Amino acid sequence: MTFVVPRQADGRPLPDQPAPRLPVGVDGLVYGGDYNPEQWPEEVWAEDVALMRQAGVNLVSVAIHAWAALEPRPGEFDFGWLDRLLDLLHGAGIAVNLATPTVVPPAWLYRAHPAIRPVTRDGVELERGSRATFCPSAPAYRQAAAAITRQLGARYGDHPAVALWHVHNEYGAPVGACYCPESATAFRRWLRARHGDLDALNAAWGTSFWGQRYGEWAEVEPPRVSGTTGNPAHELDFARFCSDELLACYTAERDILREHSTVPVTTNFMTTNCKSIDYWRWAREVDVVANDHYLTAEARRNHIDLAMSADLTRAVAGGQPWMLMEHSTGAVNWQPRNIAKRPGEMRRNSLAHVARGADAVMFFQWRASRFGAEKFHSAMLPHAGTRSRLWQEVVRLGRDLGALHEVRGSLVRADVAVLWDWESWWALELDWRPSVDLSYRERVGAFYEQLWDARLTVDFVAPEADLTGYRLVVVPSLYLTSTAAAEVLHDYVAGGGTLVVSYFSGIVDANDTVHPGAHPGALRDVLGLEVEEFLPLRAGEEVSLDGGLRGDVWAEHIRPTGAETVHSYVDGPAAGGPAVTRHRLGDGVAWYVSTRLRGAALDAVLREVFPTAGVEARDDLPRDVEVVRRRGADADYLFVLNHTDAEVRLAASGTELLTGRRCESELTVPAGGAAVLRS
Amino acid sequence: MTFVVPRQADGRPLPDQPAPRLPVGVDGLVYGGDYNPEQWPEEVWAEDVALMRQAGVNLVSVAIHAWAALEPRPGEFDFGWLDRLLDLLHGAGIAVNLATPTVVPPAWLYRAHPAIRPVTRDGVELERGSRATFCPSAPAYRQAAAAITRQLGARYGDHPAVALWHVHNEYGAPVGACYCPESATAFRRWLRARHGDLDALNAAWGTSFWGQRYGEWAEVEPPRVSGTTGNPAHELDFARFCSDELLACYTAERDILREHSTVPVTTNFMTTNCKSIDYWRWAREVDVVANDHYLTAEARRNHIDLAMSADLTRAVAGGQPWMLMEHSTGAVNWQPRNIAKRPGEMRRNSLAHVARGADAVMFFQWRASRFGAEKFHSAMLPHAGTRSRLWQEVVRLGRDLGALHEVRGSLVRADVAVLWDWESWWALELDWRPSVDLSYRERVGAFYEQLWDARLTVDFVAPEADLTGYRLVVVPSLYLTSTAAAEVLHDYVAGGGTLVVSYFSGIVDANDTVHPGAHPGALRDVLGLEVEEFLPLRAGEEVSLDGGLRGDVWAEHIRPTGAETVHSYVDGPAAGGPAVTRHRLGDGVAWYVSTRLRGAALDAVLREVFPTAGVEARDDLPRDVEVVRRRGADADYLFVLNHTDAEVRLAASGTELLTGRRCESELTVPAGGAAVLRS
Amino acid sequence: MTFVVPRQADGRPLPDQPAPRLPVGVDGLVYGGDYNPEQWPEEVWAEDVALMRQAGVNLVSVAIHAWAALEPRPGEFDFGWLDRLLDLLHGAGIAVNLATPTVVPPAWLYRAHPAIRPVTRDGVELERGSRATFCPSAPAYRQAAAAITRQLGARYGDHPAVALWHVHNEYGAPVGACYCPESATAFRRWLRARHGDLDALNAAWGTSFWGQRYGEWAEVEPPRVSGTTGNPAHELDFARFCSDELLACYTAERDILREHSTVPVTTNFMTTNCKSIDYWRWAREVDVVANDHYLTAEARRNHIDLAMSADLTRAVAGGQPWMLMEHSTGAVNWQPRNIAKRPGEMRRNSLAHVARGADAVMFFQWRASRFGAEKFHSAMLPHAGTRSRLWQEVVRLGRDLGALHEVRGSLVRADVAVLWDWESWWALELDWRPSVDLSYRERVGAFYEQLWDARLTVDFVAPEADLTGYRLVVVPSLYLTSTAAAEVLHDYVAGGGTLVVSYFSGIVDANDTVHPGAHPGALRDVLGLEVEEFLPLRAGEEVSLDGGLRGDVWAEHIRPTGAETVHSYVDGPAAGGPAVTRHRLGDGVAWYVSTRLRGAALDAVLREVFPTAGVEARDDLPRDVEVVRRRGADADYLFVLNHTDAEVRLAASGTELLTGRRCESELTVPAGGAAVLRS
Repeated sequence: MTFVVPRQADGRPLPDQPAPRLPVGVDGLVYGGDYNPEQWPEEVWAEDVALMRQAGVNLVSVAIHAWAALEPRPGEFDFGWLDRLLDLLHGAGIAVNLATPTVVPPAWLYRAHPAIRPVTRDGVELERGSRATFCPSAPAYRQAAAAITRQLGARYGDHPAVALWHVHNEYGAPVGACYCPESATAFRRWLRARHGDLDALNAAWGTSFWGQRYGEWAEVEPPRVSGTTGNPAHELDFARFCSDELLACYTAERDILREHSTVPVTTNFMTTNCKSIDYWRWAREVDVVANDHYLTAEARRNHIDLAMSADLTRAVAGGQPWMLMEHSTGAVNWQPRNIAKRPGEMRRNSLAHVARGADAVMFFQWRASRFGAEKFHSAMLPHAGTRSRLWQEVVRLGRDLGALHEVRGSLVRADVAVLWDWESWWALELDWRPSVDLSYRERVGAFYEQLWDARLTVDFVAPEADLTGYRLVVVPSLYLTSTAAAEVLHDYVAGGGTLVVSYFSGIVDANDTVHPGAHPGALRDVLGLEVEEFLPLRAGEEVSLDGGLRGDVWAEHIRPTGAETVHSYVDGPAAGGPAVTRHRLGDGVAWYVSTRLRGAALDAVLREVFPTAGVEARDDLPRDVEVVRRRGADADYLFVLNHTDAEVRLAASGTELLTGRRCESELTVPAGGAAVLRS
Repeated sequence: MTFVVPRQADGRPLPDQPAPRLPVGVDGLVYGGDYNPEQWPEEVWAEDVALMRQAGVNLVSVAIHAWAALEPRPGEFDFGWLDRLLDLLHGAGIAVNLATPTVVPPAWLYRAHPAIRPVTRDGVELERGSRATFCPSAPAYRQAAAAITRQLGARYGDHPAVALWHVHNEYGAPVGACYCPESATAFRRWLRARHGDLDALNAAWGTSFWGQRYGEWAEVEPPRVSGTTGNPAHELDFARFCSDELLACYTAERDILREHSTVPVTTNFMTTNCKSIDYWRWAREVDVVANDHYLTAEARRNHIDLAMSADLTRAVAGGQPWMLMEHSTGAVNWQPRNIAKRPGEMRRNSLAHVARGADAVMFFQWRASRFGAEKFHSAMLPHAGTRSRLWQEVVRLGRDLGALHEVRGSLVRADVAVLWDWESWWALELDWRPSVDLSYRERVGAFYEQLWDARLTVDFVAPEADLTGYRLVVVPSLYLTSTAAAEVLHDYVAGGGTLVVSYFSGIVDANDTVHPGAHPGALRDVLGLEVEEFLPLRAGEEVSLDGGLRGDVWAEHIRPTGAETVHSYVDGPAAGGPAVTRHRLGDGVAWYVSTRLRGAALDAVLREVFPTAGVEARDDLPRDVEVVRRRGADADYLFVLNHTDAEVRLAASGTELLTGRRCESELTVPAGGAAVLRS
Repeated sequence: MTFVVPRQADGRPLPDQPAPRLPVGVDGLVYGGDYNPEQWPEEVWAEDVALMRQAGVNLVSVAIHAWAALEPRPGEFDFGWLDRLLDLLHGAGIAVNLATPTVVPPAWLYRAHPAIRPVTRDGVELERGSRATFCPSAPAYRQAAAAITRQLGARYGDHPAVALWHVHNEYGAPVGACYCPESATAFRRWLRARHGDLDALNAAWGTSFWGQRYGEWAEVEPPRVSGTTGNPAHELDFARFCSDELLACYTAERDILREHSTVPVTTNFMTTNCKSIDYWRWAREVDVVANDHYLTAEARRNHIDLAMSADLTRAVAGGQPWMLMEHSTGAVNWQPRNIAKRPGEMRRNSLAHVARGADAVMFFQWRASRFGAEKFHSAMLPHAGTRSRLWQEVVRLGRDLGALHEVRGSLVRADVAVLWDWESWWALELDWRPSVDLSYRERVGAFYEQLWDARLTVDFVAPEADLTGYRLVVVPSLYLTSTAAAEVLHDYVAGGGTLVVSYFSGIVDANDTVHPGAHPGALRDVLGLEVEEFLPLRAGEEVSLDGGLRGDVWAEHIRPTGAETVHSYVDGPAAGGPAVTRHRLGDGVAWYVSTRLRGAALDAVLREVFPTAGVEARDDLPRDVEVVRRRGADADYLFVLNHTDAEVRLAASGTELLTGRRCESELTVPAGGAAVLRS
């Protein structure tokens, strides 16, 4: 079921992987942001354009929320302002990323078709008045969205300003699912396509449990709130359906645009932060992968999460360059405490995305709104105006990106892969798992953080992707593991690879059915062990392992069937038994970590793994100095991002592109600064 | 209003109390579990039966969730598989506890009768898809349930495999109440029966408060969510109605079965864990009391809660033997952190139930499910199969129970009674009590724990039950106390008994109306005091009593009117006033504890009480070594359960039944082990 | 938009401010409480009246919840009992505060008109059964309320017992808003009146943000739950509408009463505790301001919150005397932990209200209810009866108030004003502000507490009120600041005043639109600075300022444009920048505090401010000894309330009214006691 991203052994895209199609007519790196001119009198537009040029902006996203402005009454269109805007921008040499405005239908559509309102699991009908509040299965919504898209495509399909199509906005959030009767109808249609007949559905969902058998299709509903926990396979298929149903909205609009235009089409993803969309499937449908990323403002070291997001985005882009469609110049407005970025932080954030494959750096938003729900969201042009520090940094970033123009198109290669799967995320976090402390995102993040600290560049890969060429593959909490995915891992190890698997992986198949026999059914062979019993720990309880390691959340009663014990439990419910194991299989080694290790403890285990994998941590730099390499046809580009408060020096030579200076042997990067060395 | 369990002075059932009717044809102790063959291909059944025999299983519960399998379409029945299963089991000598499958109606019934869905207090309609999600007042549900029950009764009423009828499953959870219009109609009918006319209802509910007077029956609704706290008498009557309405579902099915079958009929209770069912009332309607008990997995010393559950179950069984219908071999799946049982723990749990009166030990479930919401619930036959520790323990337990066959039918006697009342539980925990820290279950549990630690076997008794013969009666937080119940307590003390009452008892009558005059209106006389003012404490605040005791949650301004002060408040809002008092009345003594004492502090006060009651704590054994005695016609059976990690020795003689060894003077029980000594 | 309370320079009401109309025929201070005779047999009434006389009660509020008792069936009235009651009371010399009972419509009205039930933001229809659960926009409710009001007015308009009309009860709680279709209709009507046409509404609400433009009035709905945060101007107008819609309910009833009666009309406010009512607007419509106040039971030093409530009540009363309509003799029943009042506390509470302008001290309730949701609420006559401490204190308080009769009509004057605004409260606490730790009520309370500790009597003032005559004006978190309000502050400072403004003030206008340019747009000029960026702090994070001060929650990047820095940030995100500034403007000074200071830190800054303002803290008394002065035509009255556990002495002379003793030079107030000195 899971989409396989085809790739070569060295992690590069296959020869037949289509190259991404960046905005037409924009050379070098893309720079810009969302631009909402409809919020301002037209006399402000000229100032906007002048300041955009000052900042080096070469692309702006427009009309994302403009449906009501473009079609004020059903079938009546007002394109005049957009005509003028596009001409103005084009005249100034600023390309346009033109949106289909279907994320916010006009008020009149809700009045004419009340059923386009989405309904929650509890049966609450969500009202318009914010954004992205619609039922993706409602025919009335689909038809109206197609109509406005057709209008835009016809009118602007060959407008010279238009360099890219931005379909909709952030599909999947804030409303990721609708439980209304129209969604029920669509869900049944989707289920028929997936399962064929009801017997197959009854078998796949295990409806003999708790007497849930279906006798007619009409009995199948979305998984609305029930007296207690429902059928997990039902939930899992509904999650797939929700992702697919939104994808159908996207492809419908894309196909209409393609009838009218040869300009590339995309939509903005939120790879690490949107649980409701399976981006492995979606990425096949866009001409270029675009991503939005926002820091978790209160988190310390949130630049690591940023790196993970960028790496995952590159992965869904098949290793090709991608666009950072939105991030923020400073604070956002929708988190509990919207911590502002420190001086230099926006620049490091931007260059970190570029270092990991972005060929575009864009922001929400160009000019801070004076009204509405996001008026306290930062912007390229803040309320405080052009005297502000923030504006100065925006201008400087424009210059920096100009200096990096040759980086465009270069690629990132990695020796280490981390397996990522939205379906496992969905399945693992359904109700009634052995412990509420199990978290997919936490476990992937924990492994990623240690690899980041070791300065090992990471590719994310899909569960059934070819792993040839990777020295090390890490599989955190792959609860749902198909037999096919398990075979890939088995072959990878047998072929000489090094695999690290964390607990609660390999448990169920695509229908959330336990693989036969002892856990982890799909991975017993490759790991050389059986888990006789899960031993979740109490809240706050820790277990000791030999070697001074401490774990929490989880332990297991493991019976090795070929694996050797690397670390044992010293206390706790599994005292005396294996905690970390190693299984030699063919030419490779499969490690298993059966408790939750974090930070130094997880690092210690990975340091034992690295030599067997032939990878080496880089420890010659202070903590929080980030180094990543992009490889171009003619040169390599070493990005050094100094997230610390002290100057850092490292041995390197080449041309530092941001300053244009030649570096002979030692590169100095100031506190909070960045460097990009061409070699 | 409250049902009185009749009993003799020594706690034994009255001569005319009908003996429980254990499963027909099963000798000795019953052993087995829920068996869901419909989840497995028929070829697995033979293996199941062979393993059941290996484990010593003699009874399995079948068809609990099989309605959709038995009646796939309205009025079309498929009994073939059940015929074959019953024959197979019967042929193997395994008796069947046959369920009416009415806890999960088939999908077609929901489609045909949407109104069978229950509705929450907030008006949310709960969808099918999990289990036990139906409106007990819906005529369509009642009729369909009667029809399938009739089919089963007619077909299997005299099947030789059927040894017991298991009506429905765990009435009252997870949905304990329905607020739909059909429930409203039934509620009005129930209220008419209880109150007669509207004037009586207005008086009982005190509707002159906040202008809530009813002028017509049609104005009365279930207590749906309102702007703020509603009428507490309304809530209390609705709680009674909900329990009674489910009871009517039970008795309807039971009566149909009795038309076709002479086999005993029961349903499984959850005595200490289901607040929505008044088991005092229900217990009169079953041929044998059956109970489900699950440990609170994360709680330390949860074997004490188990003991309390067993004692309460024996109480609702009128002191007669009862069946443990469900517990778990290891972890469950529905708690936040499903801690697995340690080696030996399942065995001690099982024998602890037997020690306190169970003549059956059964599990949910026989074989672990591969799919559905409970696939991570442990089973007798786990995913890890027959090589597992858990299976070995299951086989051993079967042998143990066989060795205890003669225990069947023996009884437990106690000198100490604890008063238990579902109505007080309901009433005490309604909104707007003086402190949110008041908890019925907490207070009963706190007293029970100290009595358990003192190794005093406890009977639970209903509020108006005869207390003759008990040396000590404990009354924790009996907020709702009828005048009749108060008279029983008064007579008990006057007749020489020792009574301990905790705070917030005796406050209101059956309509949640404050007894006239100073608190505690119903108990002022027996306690010899008035409470002038409640003095709830702040969150975390403690008060000191003389003697080094510390209380929290609650204090009171007490004015003695006959009682003497045993401990005074040293600080806090009642500083200088009485905290613990003692009132000599007739030949007995009534103690009062006006603050929340726990652990050692509560123990200290009880140690002052015990001598006056003539009971004696047993302190010669290490903490967490449990001893209970069952008394048979010809012999006594001393159960010793060693919940510690160290071997324990105690002076005793007789035959240890689990090992068959003769014990002359000292019995040795290994760490985590158990012994049963016949003397 | 905001109502201006007109006042003279010295804080006294203007000559044309109508004097409050206290209950007709009651001399001296008013004493009494809610009286619910319908809850008791008539034979109890005689005892009630006798005890009222014993306690010195001269006014009782009756019929508040009596609609169902007065109109048991639609159009059928039963006034007999009320006739008898009023005659009884009148005969005993006890005046009546007669309520219109419209806060709880009878059950029959809900049955006849289901649409009078209010609907929540989530679409949940609230059922009757508690109180105050109705839709204020429902025509059926309005008509029925008018009809019963007309009946009462006609029958009792000139009854000699009736001294005051008590319309409804506590408008605005517990249900402050209704989102039903009838409310939608009324909301549209209100919006037309406010904005005129849709273009104006679209402009005011900034509907060009997120494409929310309205094309027809029928598209406008109450701000029901949507996919994410809605339009803040929409929310803000809805808050205004809700307050106004309830006000229309009040004025409709008032006007009917005035047709029949010359007795003054009021309704009971909850000034500091009801966020949903804009009392600046409401106070214009009552003949006398009445207020309900309840302590936050668990809070330490909750007498300061009481003082703040009294001062705010006096403010909305235009500086004139007012009535304390409800407080409690002891514990309430609706807080989590209902801490009882300590001996003497009720007396100090009562006298503190009088000290700050109350000419009436009334309680909920006369006699404790035996049933219903509030039976554990304390009363003047508690369950424990007349032997109780509480009853003795009630009798003593009656005597005390009698001894203070001459205080009636005297006024309170203050040199310090604190600006208070319900609209800012609403706006500041809408979703998606920069930090969830921003709280309007917290900030006002923090400043008030320090002023209370400095024993500076405070007036509250509305945003556009004349500030002439105040030495110091404090503006905590006035997020919403109109240009007019900003001009008042500017002129006040320029004219020689001292102003203190806390962070997040002056940000938006009445439509929640950011004032153009850098923050704080409305106050940049008066403060002499620009805020370049908000720097919210992490949860628990603190920043240091020079001078040893520490702040939390908030910091800012400030660019002075005339202000001088008084304290700088030493660390944190604004390290090195200004934290507290001072701007000399004209003859005055404007201070700005840009981080959250509390307790000693805030006190330290205010101690720097006081000299520039010419006000002086009074530090010669122990903490928690409260002194306030009322000024009469012929004498001043110094209230001294000793909230400590130790006797206090202060230099003073005059007659102590409570004891009648002459005090020559030193006044002694016992621990927990009070004194009122006439001089």
